[in-house]
Amino acid sequence: MSAIHLAQESFNLNPGLSLIGYGLGAIGPGVGVGLIFAAVINGTARQPEAQSKLMSIAWQTFVLVEVLALIGLVLFFIASTGGAPE
Amino acid sequence: MSAIHLAQESFNLNPGLSLIGYGLGAIGPGVGVGLIFAAVINGTARQPEAQSKLMSIAWQTFVLVEVLALIGLVLFFIASTGGAPE
Amino acid sequence: MSAIHLAQESFNLNPGLSLIGYGLGAIGPGVGVGLIFAAVINGTARQPEAQSKLMSIAWQTFVLVEVLALIGLVLFFIASTGGAPE
Repeated sequence: MSAIHLAQESFNLNPGLSLIGYGLGAIGPGVGVGLIFAAVINGTARQPEAQSKLMSIAWQTFVLVEVLALIGLVLFFIASTGGAPE
Repeated sequence: MSAIHLAQESFNLNPGLSLIGYGLGAIGPGVGVGLIFAAVINGTARQPEAQSKLMSIAWQTFVLVEVLALIGLVLFFIASTGGAPE
Repeated sequence: MSAIHLAQESFNLNPGLSLIGYGLGAIGPGVGVGLIFAAVINGTARQPEAQSKLMSIAWQTFVLVEVLALIGLVLFFIASTGGAPE
């Protein structure tokens, strides 16, 4: 039961690298969802009676952007534990 | 049951590096899809009767942007398990 | 049952590094294709009768942007298996 280590230990860097990946993947959706709702606000300021129509477009479409960051969240848990099983 | 390590252990860092790749690949589509739907919302605010025409253009074209992130998702699983078979 | 490790194992990190390259290469096309079609949607909202003319310009030109990401996809498979044959 004895373990003789004559060499340097090494650390599994996958969790840290994975979080860098999630962070990078959150840049784009962060800007994209901001663009969508900024357009809703600008449009509502121009035509207040169009607010409900603009918000319905925005709710349908922002998920297509937000999902890119949530995929990164799922992949973080896959990659930080060593990747998909082969 | 004894393990003698005379050399440094090493870890497979491909999962972490692959997630960095997915994250970088999600930046562009996140911003691009946001730009497309922000344009739809702005156009609908200006001309509410053009909404259906603008949405049909947007649905046809956002997939051309979104697919770049989904290609990154597929390549993540390829690369995190060691790359394409030779 | 004893395992004697006299040398360092090593992993081929080319797949992970290649996916970082694809991800970087997909940032630009993601934003660029989004800009092109956002301009089409804005132009159609302003002059609905110009839609077919604007779309024909966009289809001809978005491939010049999209191809940059697809070149990255091809190069990913070349690089992840160890580079071009010499």
